[in-house]
Parts: sequence; structure tokens; C-alpha cells
Amino acid sequence: MRILTGLQPSGKLHIGNYFGAMQPAVQLQDQGDAFYFIADYHAMTTMENAATHRENVKNLAIDFLACGLDPEKATIFRQSDVPEVNELAWILSTVCPMGLLERAHSYKDKVAKGFDANHALFAYPALMAADILLYDAELVPVGKDQKQHLEITRDLAGKINDRFGEGTLVVPEVQIKENTAVVPGLDGQKMSKSYHNTLPICPPDTMTQKQVRKLVMKVKTDSTPVEDPKPTEGSIVIDLYKLFASEADVEKMIADHQAGGIGYGDFKQRLFDAYWEYFAPIRAKRAELENNLDYVNQVIAQGAEKARAESTKVLDRVRKAVGLR
Amino acid sequence: MRILTGLQPSGKLHIGNYFGAMQPAVQLQDQGDAFYFIADYHAMTTMENAATHRENVKNLAIDFLACGLDPEKATIFRQSDVPEVNELAWILSTVCPMGLLERAHSYKDKVAKGFDANHALFAYPALMAADILLYDAELVPVGKDQKQHLEITRDLAGKINDRFGEGTLVVPEVQIKENTAVVPGLDGQKMSKSYHNTLPICPPDTMTQKQVRKLVMKVKTDSTPVEDPKPTEGSIVIDLYKLFASEADVEKMIADHQAGGIGYGDFKQRLFDAYWEYFAPIRAKRAELENNLDYVNQVIAQGAEKARAESTKVLDRVRKAVGLR
Repeated sequence: MRILTGLQPSGKLHIGNYFGAMQPAVQLQDQGDAFYFIADYHAMTTMENAATHRENVKNLAIDFLACGLDPEKATIFRQSDVPEVNELAWILSTVCPMGLLERAHSYKDKVAKGFDANHALFAYPALMAADILLYDAELVPVGKDQKQHLEITRDLAGKINDRFGEGTLVVPEVQIKENTAVVPGLDGQKMSKSYHNTLPICPPDTMTQKQVRKLVMKVKTDSTPVEDPKPTEGSIVIDLYKLFASEADVEKMIADHQAGGIGYGDFKQRLFDAYWEYFAPIRAKRAELENNLDYVNQVIAQGAEKARAESTKVLDRVRKAVGLR
Repeated sequence: MRILTGLQPSGKLHIGNYFGAMQPAVQLQDQGDAFYFIADYHAMTTMENAATHRENVKNLAIDFLACGLDPEKATIFRQSDVPEVNELAWILSTVCPMGLLERAHSYKDKVAKGFDANHALFAYPALMAADILLYDAELVPVGKDQKQHLEITRDLAGKINDRFGEGTLVVPEVQIKENTAVVPGLDGQKMSKSYHNTLPICPPDTMTQKQVRKLVMKVKTDSTPVEDPKPTEGSIVIDLYKLFASEADVEKMIADHQAGGIGYGDFKQRLFDAYWEYFAPIRAKRAELENNLDYVNQVIAQGAEKARAESTKVLDRVRKAVGLR
């Protein structure tokens, strides 16, 4: 079974990305023929500048490998290494009613958030459909926020098949990831780069361990005095701690909250220690890869070759069906 | 100077296409480094089916050569042989405000005419901009109806240069073809496939000379009796005749109108004879090419190679500038 997942390069991964996307992706590579790609064309829709873009792409490639994606098991590649995806997006656009894109939430949401209302942002679901259909992906696991895009993808594949013959494109199944951990941000909202409430899985070069610790110390708590019992329901510290600590340690922290006598500073220190230890192997692997960019580039180049072997097959089939050949 | 022109494959050329597009194109190939392409991606926006599409592309390739485009002088290619154009269209889309496309007349006009409001039709100006900018075209001669698209092209090139550095794209000059012959259709409206009022430059395989003559006999006239003088102003017969006949013959036809005593049937016969003779060399060349499709395909393949040599250069430059490399 061909499984496909793409991630936008938008800076170093935070722990929300890790538990929401990377960890499930690592698990999936054992369950089928997995394709993972760095969605650099998509990132251009909200791109800052060329240098940041390049840096983000490099970082995501390193993150893919540091987090455990395995080039022996999966095809790891960069979207723009297979530019043919843009051709398929055009072909899909010819059967894509404007209403389908006009109704897409993501465009409206991004514009509401202040992003430029550019055509790429609007056309995004057509390119995303091409990302999926170009590789005959059969299963696409996505978060709830991407459900509509997957429906558009299935819709467009169906329209192409209706018009140009069954089997021209593979209509993928959607898998909504219901049970991925909800990762609260430092302020309790959903962790997201746009809320400035993230915790990196590895501190960026510009940040020391001490500075990351300071971030953890900023996690929102209430003003219960040290000696009093502290609420455990809705505690951001405990919710984050659950991601990193053993069951026993979590139970102990809950009991200590209920008993009183320990201040939030101490709990946050435990959280920091657990977090820091949890990501130690990834941090080490990341540092190693940073010093071995040739290897990273080689993995991505080989991934591009494997991806293109597949895309060429699919696109040849589509081009013949629609009359471009 | 690099000059670029594209034509949609939409069935065999009619005389409106010939005088409006082909004849100026043939003249231009002596004035610069001319690129001509068969816009088959664009034709997909209003495509009937794959077989017709293929047939139309083949016919336009033959028409290009039959009408006098010379592969020794110009680069003659098929748009989809350089699929990289779709990648540039995406890059341009990232700087293209939605308002720019929303204001485009062509989309609104086509939807008003009953075409499907599909996304490709809407995105058309972005792909057209890529067609032009991918080849560093310096001059693009277009009809008035394409003026807005060229303005969009210049606008997008300017935005890319502002954002990613001057010289990333060449901003083309627009040349509005003011003095191309206005070719009336058989009913007096502008000759256009969508008005069903066209006269082919060569009868299609399914049409005999007799049937084409019948078409000419249908040219709209008034009901002045044979013996009376006939109006010459606004006469479709005379306006069409001017395209094919010598000045002396045109003067004679005008004088004969004014004198009276000759019926419209006779004038239409003169028109048919002049038209038939005018296109005799193109008809002969066309028949020859129909029997030598290998040569036609070879010309198109060589054109693709020449076009791609240029597009690769431009796209490499753009990809570096925007951070995709």
C-alpha cells in the first residue's frame, strides 16, 4: 500500500509537529510503501525570502532523518525535485470547478490571518491533489484540518476518471488521524508557530539549553501558593509532561500536585528534564547530520530518483489519457 | 530580439486566424529570433476530448509549416513539450494577487459564453505569463483582446524582480497589432469559431471544394435586385474579396456593384475563385505535409529541444533567485 505524507518546511520542528506529524510518519513507514516529501512549493505561498526558504528546506530534511525516517524503508524527497507535479496540477485544474476552490477553508483562513491573497494560496488544493495523485497514493493520513483538501483530491481524481477513462488516476483513501496527541502550546492554546507558543524539538543554533529551559519555565500556570494542592485538570505542565515521562513519573507528578507543598517551578523543572532527555537521541542525531550534509543531500537526491520513477509512470498514463500524447 | 507567439490548437485554421495571426507571424520570423508554440495546455481549458485534442495539435503543426513558418528561421514547438512552464506558472502565482486574475476579462467572457468555470480557465493568465517569461521574450505582438494578459505578465515579472532581484525575469514589451486586417465572418460578425461563421484556409478532409464553395455562397448580402446598383459600403463580399484579390480586381468589383446588372451570385463566385486561388499553394503544401507527418514531428521535436535549451537557462536562474535551489 502506497502511503503519502508531505510536510511544509517552515522552520525547525516544534514538539507539536513532532507528535502530530513526525511520530505517526515514522510509525507508518513500517506499514506500507511510504512516500514523504518536503513541500517546498507549498511553502512558497507564504514565503519570507529565498535564504530562509533554503534554510528551512535543509532543516526539514535533517529533521526527517533525525526523527527516524529511514531511507531504506521510505522514499524521502523534495517536492520541487519532481517539478512534473505542476503539470498534473494544471491538468487537474482543467476539471476543477472554481467553486471547489472558493469553498476551501484554508484559503479563507489564511487570508483572514493576514497572509497575502495570492493565487498560489488559492490554487494550493489543486497542487496538493497533484502531490497525492502523481504517486498513485492509496492512503493519505491527515489531520482534521486537511480533510477538505483530501475530499477535493478525491473529487478531482474522480472527474478525470469520468472524463478520460477509469484508472487514469488512483482515488486515494483518506485516513483522519483522530488519536494523535493534542499538544498544548506554552500558553495553553494549540501549539502553533503562528501563536508564538512553541517548544522546539532541538534548540536552534541561536538558542542555548538555558534559553530553552527558560521557555519551559514560561508555561502558563495559575497562582496557587506553593503550600496548597494544585489543580491537575487542564494543567498544561502535566499535559506536556505526559508526552515525555513514564506513566509512573506522571502519576507521581499528579500526586504531588494534589498533595501541595511543591511549587510550579519544581514541576516545570521536572518537565524540562523529561523533555530534554526525551529528545536527547534526536538532538544527537541532528548534530551528527548537521555535520554530514553530504549524506543528507544524497538521501534526498536518491529519494527524488525513486519518486520520479513513479511519477513518470503515472504522468505518462495521464498524458496519454487526456490527449497530451 | 526574442519574439514570442502562441496559438491554440482548436481545429483547422480559418481565414480569420490566417490574416490575424499566421500571416503576421510569418512576417515576424525575419525580424528577430522568433518562438512559435502550439498552446496545447491552454486548449485544455475548453477541451472536447483527447482524440480531438490530438488531432487539433497535429493540424496546427501542419498549418504552421504550410503557412510558411520556417524551422530554419524560427523555433517552432509544442507547449507541453516543455512542461517546466507549469513550474514557472506556480512561482508566478505566489506573487500574483487574486484580484489581478479576478479582473481578467477573458475568464468572465468565457464563463458568460457558457464555458465551464474551471480553475484552469481562471489561472490561464498566470500560465500565459509563464509561456512568455520562460523564454526571456522581449516582444510579444498580440491582438487588442490580449492586451490585459500582457499587462498581467509584465506586472508579475516586475513583482518577481522586486522581490527576488532585478534581472530574475525579463519584462517583455507589448506590441498591439493595430493594423491587422479585420476579417468579417460569413454573417458579417467577427470571424470566430464560436460564431460558426468561418471559412477554412483549407477544406477539412470531410469537405469537398463544392461544399466550401457553398459556404462562400452563403455570405450575407442584401436583397437588391440583379439589375440595380448595389451598396459597396459594409459589403461583406467586397471586404472578403479585398483579402485575396488584386487592387485592380477589387476596383472592378466595386465598379460592377455600382453599375448594377450583375447579381450577388456572380460576385460570390469571383470571391470564391480568388479565395481558392490565394490558398492554392498552402493547400498543396498542406497535402504534402499530411503525407509526411514524420517530417512534421521531427520539426516539432527539434523545436522542443531548442525551446528547452532556453527554458532551462531561465528556470535555473529563477529557481536560484527564489530559493528553490
